[in-house]
Amino acid sequence: MTEILVVGSVALDTIHTPVGSHESLLGGSASYFSLASSLYVPVRVVAVVGEDFLPRHREIFAGRRIDLGGLQVAEGKTFHWEGVYTADMNERTTVRTDLNVFESFHPVLPSSYLQTGSVFLANIDPPLQEEVLDQLDAPSLVALDTMNYWINNRREELLRVLHRVHLFLLNDSEARELTGAENILKAAEGIQMMGPSIVVIKRGEFGALACTDGGWFSLPAYPVEGLKDPTGAGDAFAGGMLGYLSRRGTIDEAGIRTAMAHGTAVASFAVEEFGVEGLLRADEDQVLERVRTLAAMTRFDPE
Amino acid sequence: MTEILVVGSVALDTIHTPVGSHESLLGGSASYFSLASSLYVPVRVVAVVGEDFLPRHREIFAGRRIDLGGLQVAEGKTFHWEGVYTADMNERTTVRTDLNVFESFHPVLPSSYLQTGSVFLANIDPPLQEEVLDQLDAPSLVALDTMNYWINNRREELLRVLHRVHLFLLNDSEARELTGAENILKAAEGIQMMGPSIVVIKRGEFGALACTDGGWFSLPAYPVEGLKDPTGAGDAFAGGMLGYLSRRGTIDEAGIRTAMAHGTAVASFAVEEFGVEGLLRADEDQVLERVRTLAAMTRFDPE
Repeated sequence: MTEILVVGSVALDTIHTPVGSHESLLGGSASYFSLASSLYVPVRVVAVVGEDFLPRHREIFAGRRIDLGGLQVAEGKTFHWEGVYTADMNERTTVRTDLNVFESFHPVLPSSYLQTGSVFLANIDPPLQEEVLDQLDAPSLVALDTMNYWINNRREELLRVLHRVHLFLLNDSEARELTGAENILKAAEGIQMMGPSIVVIKRGEFGALACTDGGWFSLPAYPVEGLKDPTGAGDAFAGGMLGYLSRRGTIDEAGIRTAMAHGTAVASFAVEEFGVEGLLRADEDQVLERVRTLAAMTRFDPE
Repeated sequence: MTEILVVGSVALDTIHTPVGSHESLLGGSASYFSLASSLYVPVRVVAVVGEDFLPRHREIFAGRRIDLGGLQVAEGKTFHWEGVYTADMNERTTVRTDLNVFESFHPVLPSSYLQTGSVFLANIDPPLQEEVLDQLDAPSLVALDTMNYWINNRREELLRVLHRVHLFLLNDSEARELTGAENILKAAEGIQMMGPSIVVIKRGEFGALACTDGGWFSLPAYPVEGLKDPTGAGDAFAGGMLGYLSRRGTIDEAGIRTAMAHGTAVASFAVEEFGVEGLLRADEDQVLERVRTLAAMTRFDPE
């Protein structure tokens, strides 16, 4: 069993969705990712928080296979994001982003982390993603997430780090923006030329699409009727997917497909409650049950 | 083998997409549907055209199992639609709609049509859809398509005809508008309460979702890289789906799933050329090959 290292944000979020508003919620890509992937393998977190990060926030990670040895505590306040979702929850507007301690963050890996086999470079400034790769001894699986802001403002740096990435997770608009291709299939193939042999297009309620050397794979979202808060769904998906792949050990076409189903199942728990609450309630058996449901709701006989 | 009757529009379209513009193209729901479904079973068309409908337009249907005995020719011009697609072709704007001879259209079924086993009530005014059902002897499969305009302006009439429908095809926004439910799963379940036991949500490039008594079924779109004109994709989908189901004879869960794959495959040919040209090039073997590709690109092992 391989461990996973994640570098990303640990945040305190204020979230408004049609079903309610909550503040001071534990959030951030590294939080969602580590809580999801720790269902499968031990996870090492590299991130930074401020002095307002309370014991009750830290305790959320306790009792799980999550190593916070790489979580720096800096003077100042924790990264804070506030957002409002539309009625159908397919879009959101950022009300404010206070980088706070994240502004001067540079990842420093404890020596015990250097041999980690799998790494998830969550959505942060590409030079920081690169700093992590520079510190690690040849990881066997490097996955990366990003956003339109970096695609537009750190293009060169992003392209440089992409050369070192095996698995790239992004959404439709990011794929189009990165490649200039309107057709999502052409965009994914274009991204493969940039380095990552596995490109996973995350499409929210429409599921996910993978472009690999084995061809296309398409998977719907798990049918969630009680959607409460879509925040972190993408990171939970990445956590389930990388967690499964790391535990499985071999990264072949069949494994990638099953891993995406695990990512989808784990993400479905994440969105059923505000913040990370839904993820905390998920266990391995429940996830596997949803993976089986996904298999059942996609299977058909072509003849 | 059961025949299918379709009532809908036969139109002359002017279409602008990012890859080109064409005018006087044979179009309309009944055209796309009949060309698609005639790959499977004989089809009877009930529609109206004007005096500008030329022999070259009529010839497009020739040599196929399409009976135009129910195609009225009226004084005046054929229904004309002009539309412009966005760069990603996911949305379109109607530039003009000239109803012309369609304005005073009332479907009149030739006596030889009255026993037809399957019927597709394409997207027209719900009272006209009802007039067709009133003329038919108990068809075993009634499918219906509609649009936001009828949902908002003919709600009562639409709900009345829905009680007599087995299979309802609509898109996400129509499902939400009809039910008031933001969650598409709840919307589909709400629609089942209105009559149709099979609800198929068409999602364009994101595929289709079915809600049946057997639960959920989700299918991606066929990966088309050379998209030229999305016009008629929904009607081609309906044609492939109903064509397959009518030929199969039994309407069970497995049949509905395979039928949706056929609809998806047939629609993928439709969008590869302007107007109905792509459909004309498709044959049974090619469709089956794409159905198999769809099966291969969705299959995964849950364990």
